[in-house]
Amino acid sequence: MAQYQASARAHTNIALIKYWGKKDQQLILPMNGSLSLTLDKFYTDTSVSYDKNLTQDEFYLNGAQKEDPKVMHFMDIVRQNTGFDSHAVIKSTNHVPTAAGLASSASAYAALALAATAAANKKFDRQKLSRIARRGSGSATRSIFGGFAEWLEGTDDQSSYAQPLEYENDWDIRMIAIVIDDQPKKVSSRQGMQTVVATSPFYSEWIKSAKTDLKNIKTALASQDFKHFGEIAESNALKMHALNLSAQPHFNYFAPASIIAMNIIEEIRELGYPCYYTMDAGPNVKVICKNADLSVILRQLQNHFPADHLLVAAPGPGAQLLD
Amino acid sequence: MAQYQASARAHTNIALIKYWGKKDQQLILPMNGSLSLTLDKFYTDTSVSYDKNLTQDEFYLNGAQKEDPKVMHFMDIVRQNTGFDSHAVIKSTNHVPTAAGLASSASAYAALALAATAAANKKFDRQKLSRIARRGSGSATRSIFGGFAEWLEGTDDQSSYAQPLEYENDWDIRMIAIVIDDQPKKVSSRQGMQTVVATSPFYSEWIKSAKTDLKNIKTALASQDFKHFGEIAESNALKMHALNLSAQPHFNYFAPASIIAMNIIEEIRELGYPCYYTMDAGPNVKVICKNADLSVILRQLQNHFPADHLLVAAPGPGAQLLD
Repeated sequence: MAQYQASARAHTNIALIKYWGKKDQQLILPMNGSLSLTLDKFYTDTSVSYDKNLTQDEFYLNGAQKEDPKVMHFMDIVRQNTGFDSHAVIKSTNHVPTAAGLASSASAYAALALAATAAANKKFDRQKLSRIARRGSGSATRSIFGGFAEWLEGTDDQSSYAQPLEYENDWDIRMIAIVIDDQPKKVSSRQGMQTVVATSPFYSEWIKSAKTDLKNIKTALASQDFKHFGEIAESNALKMHALNLSAQPHFNYFAPASIIAMNIIEEIRELGYPCYYTMDAGPNVKVICKNADLSVILRQLQNHFPADHLLVAAPGPGAQLLD
Repeated sequence: MAQYQASARAHTNIALIKYWGKKDQQLILPMNGSLSLTLDKFYTDTSVSYDKNLTQDEFYLNGAQKEDPKVMHFMDIVRQNTGFDSHAVIKSTNHVPTAAGLASSASAYAALALAATAAANKKFDRQKLSRIARRGSGSATRSIFGGFAEWLEGTDDQSSYAQPLEYENDWDIRMIAIVIDDQPKKVSSRQGMQTVVATSPFYSEWIKSAKTDLKNIKTALASQDFKHFGEIAESNALKMHALNLSAQPHFNYFAPASIIAMNIIEEIRELGYPCYYTMDAGPNVKVICKNADLSVILRQLQNHFPADHLLVAAPGPGAQLLD
């Protein structure tokens, strides 16, 4: 039994150039390439233990058994890739502060992709792991890698995967997640992007614009231009949210406190501290800044948000096996 | 002297299909046609008294003399149209609750167009008055008319004017202006639309979409389909605000309380009361509903906003001369 068992950890990532729409629902091929930062603070630990006597997969999340057809479907994809045909007991623990809204499926499927293939005694390279993780959740594609990662949109299963973006700079970047208490989101990211692709009159221009943003943010990364880097990320995020306002029916992820947070970040920036925000399919606002400016920015934010709602993360590593 | 004096009143209007961008800055020709509702509650009274001894126009707003080059430029346009070459003393009073953010230039230039031409003893028809008012402020084009008005985009000075939309229905419409206290807006509508036209990747699609919305909302008006009418108006407004998020630099008019107001309106709608919101270049949220539902909607809104921040207006008349 013991040799058909493995555990892995993967960290969540925050997209700075957004993925918001699929060109293939089945294969989860995105409409445009995206770019993200993997974070050290938020991660999922997952163990997979195959057992020939099982007739179906058993999944436990944070200690409680869950019926999750998406996980079972994903395990079928893993089995297609490993050729190892047993069902498994899967135990996942999310290490994300409760209610942070950062428990994304990115870390979950990246950890599961690594643990489930390793437990089948397959040592796939990261590119292949990235392609497998993609089938669970688009954003998981990127969480196989640490630091900055680019998800190449690709044209088929083989060509759509992430790769690390090697760069040299002295940014010593940090991300502040401003946790905003709010109702559970009404529109899931999966549903939201589908509505946008089907109905937004702006969607085709978004694709062009996101591709340009991706090209430009990589140039900014390569040339160590943090200001330009941040401006592109912030603009790209707001264009994604603009799509939601333009969809039929329209929807949005702005809580009142999201607006407050964005305004404060713009004010801090006007004081001379470069910091830029992004938002995803929920009310939290995430801020990128340099470590050198972190304490000043946190002090300003603490005038408006409780200190325990300001979570600081640094760039984190890629998915890794645990002993 | 007395015969070269006239006073006029014009009411403000709220666009349900938005004007957001000019194809001619000088002539104020809009990129797309728009549709509005003139409101009885908010208006400007303006008197114009020509005096051959004056060497320049004198302008008083709410009793205080103002240097306003836009008003002087507008008076030059009036003089070109009347052929009457004197300068004038202009006295304007805005009848809009302080801080309501509804003191638009629409009622101001519509009233001034009528008063300044009448004081020169010219009796222009409303179409011509509408064209003159347009040169002061785009939205003033529509305030010459009462009720619903459509501003035809046109291709030159002659063809760009508003006209009333005659319709029969039993809607007995009301508009609730939810007054949201906030800082003065950072980006004027004039500046905002100019930035959007110059930089939004979504702008060309907005134009197409707004033209479709205008066509469809007129159909909804003609067929007495209030639900469809409101949905189109709300969607059109959010697309306009989406443009602002997509501009370079991005900007927006959402205050935290704007988000609260929009959410509440959506909730009231889910309770079965048809009501729809719109927003312009400021944080206030304006709600269209039927008079029959007004008291229920107001009661719900009063759970979140002070009663004196909820201003109710009915359709108002076009510009008119005062005795």
